[in-house]
Amino acid sequence: MKANLMDEAPSKEQCLVSVNAIRDALYVLNGKWKLPLIFTLLEKPRRFNEIQHALQGITPKILSKELKDLEENGFVNRTVYPTTPVTVIYEITRYSNTLESVLNELRIWGIQHREMIIASMKKKELKA
Amino acid sequence: MKANLMDEAPSKEQCLVSVNAIRDALYVLNGKWKLPLIFTLLEKPRRFNEIQHALQGITPKILSKELKDLEENGFVNRTVYPTTPVTVIYEITRYSNTLESVLNELRIWGIQHREMIIASMKKKELKA
Repeated sequence: MKANLMDEAPSKEQCLVSVNAIRDALYVLNGKWKLPLIFTLLEKPRRFNEIQHALQGITPKILSKELKDLEENGFVNRTVYPTTPVTVIYEITRYSNTLESVLNELRIWGIQHREMIIASMKKKELKA
Repeated sequence: MKANLMDEAPSKEQCLVSVNAIRDALYVLNGKWKLPLIFTLLEKPRRFNEIQHALQGITPKILSKELKDLEENGFVNRTVYPTTPVTVIYEITRYSNTLESVLNELRIWGIQHREMIIASMKKKELKA
């Protein structure tokens, strides 16, 4: 991608590669629970029940699916300790740090975009 | 957000602000057609039918909705020229350039994440 989106139109092939890579990234991050889950585990490693308690409203079935998804994508480690009954602890991996730039850019852009939308709504109200 | 995601756990409040901003950004970018639409209009301004032709498989109803959504978010300008019949041209706005960093980070991360996943699948195959 060019320094400026509008400087030069990318080729069809470049577009496809870019769109697919961006889609991969969006796919991993999206959904209602992925980000809250990552942020909850950033606070500290937790057990299944503790996570369910922290994320109010999530069902055990969905939480289980989301944790498995995050584990498969390398963001979460699941460790079983041989206590009686067994203790299962979920924690964030070092690999999650690779998300730092992308989450930061999304956060910055999200904040400024909201400001733009609010300003433009106010402008419309003044006109009306 | 800290320089390193794991350096220090953010407070609950910081988390919520970050999660909401990131969600705003993801909301705007997500869906099957948003990115292909933006990339198609980056090539050149187009009419409705031309866009529909470029994005094979999109229905007029969905295209209309997606264009309206992009217009409301400031990414696309819709101009009506008083020809007979009227000509409606959609083009990308200067504001879309604000997406550049975020799309670039998503692209870079998406590429390296795919490589990581492929490497980890190969490793599992070797073990099996």
